[in-house]
Amino acid sequence: MGLFISMEGPDGSGKTMQMDMLEQDLRQRGLDVLRSREPGGTAISEKIRDMLLDPANTEMSSRTEALLYAASRAQHVEQVLKPALDGGKIVLCDRYVDSSLVYQGIGRGLGIPAIEEINAFATGGLQPDVTIVLQIDFEEGLRRKGRQNGSLDRMEAQKEDFLRRIHDGFTHLKDLDPDRVFLIDGANPPDEVFREIQNVLKPFLTGL
Amino acid sequence: MGLFISMEGPDGSGKTMQMDMLEQDLRQRGLDVLRSREPGGTAISEKIRDMLLDPANTEMSSRTEALLYAASRAQHVEQVLKPALDGGKIVLCDRYVDSSLVYQGIGRGLGIPAIEEINAFATGGLQPDVTIVLQIDFEEGLRRKGRQNGSLDRMEAQKEDFLRRIHDGFTHLKDLDPDRVFLIDGANPPDEVFREIQNVLKPFLTGL
Repeated sequence: MGLFISMEGPDGSGKTMQMDMLEQDLRQRGLDVLRSREPGGTAISEKIRDMLLDPANTEMSSRTEALLYAASRAQHVEQVLKPALDGGKIVLCDRYVDSSLVYQGIGRGLGIPAIEEINAFATGGLQPDVTIVLQIDFEEGLRRKGRQNGSLDRMEAQKEDFLRRIHDGFTHLKDLDPDRVFLIDGANPPDEVFREIQNVLKPFLTGL
Repeated sequence: MGLFISMEGPDGSGKTMQMDMLEQDLRQRGLDVLRSREPGGTAISEKIRDMLLDPANTEMSSRTEALLYAASRAQHVEQVLKPALDGGKIVLCDRYVDSSLVYQGIGRGLGIPAIEEINAFATGGLQPDVTIVLQIDFEEGLRRKGRQNGSLDRMEAQKEDFLRRIHDGFTHLKDLDPDRVFLIDGANPPDEVFREIQNVLKPFLTGL
């Protein structure tokens, strides 16, 4: 079995840049890395992703949204993540079940237990070995995201109180699973953030 | 609150014809009827339906399939079924949760409890008041379906042992919920089948 690393955090927390740095670092060490993202990662999952993020789907119910994320994840686990882990690879995944706990469980108010339940079904119980949560000041995250692009997808185009619940929800992940989840301050300079990520991952990578 | 009638049965059992007769009969009595079908019934649900039935999606995992049916249903319940029932209508629905119990729970081998769980989440617990299951001899069902159309969708184009499990699964629904589910032999002449349906529904329609 390989190693399953997931990266979480609100939009604008610097996830993508840190994923890039981590992927490059692991490859330079000669490790076999598979990088993926959710929602997406397979042809079927990408079709579901398009439905989820299409700004035209304004009437989508919260339960539909939660089930579509879980459906996309089920396909991703079966077709990509499990085979890679079974093949001994290091899997780097941009968002996983934790994002659903935060966005649908807390943000949409569907509750953590219900979202855990449907995702346990979706993943067949597959959990990351270690999860990095990049946290960032709420206003700073909005500013960074605003600089990146002009048009927002359906999930980004939410009201501010929803986005605030998401922001606080990511911090709450540490309470839900303190042994697996590590909070890292994404406001520091990228090199410093990356050194902290390396420190967290060191014990997991020893011997690989 | 209105009345929620669902119609179930394998392909070729005569569901559509009996739905037509029932809809016409109820409307002639001056009742306010909403007829719908699953998967589908809303714009979002129809997009999900297209993914589910697209013969190109051969690599779809069983769990993804089960979650997509549930996602489509969640949207249908919230946008169509609940508002109609709250408005006092008689809802006639071609397939509902029972079809998922049979196709995904039994046919795909995911088990009845798991499918009940994700559908309890999807529907918020909304159950039909009465469910008619049309049953038909396995070979006769295949013959009838073969006469209707030449090309099969992804669900119809399954191997025979899957289709046999489905066929037997519909009979099993009566054991799961004997007070709600009524088995009717769809092999009889359509007028006779319809009289049996009318007999089953009579106590539910009294006073409406």
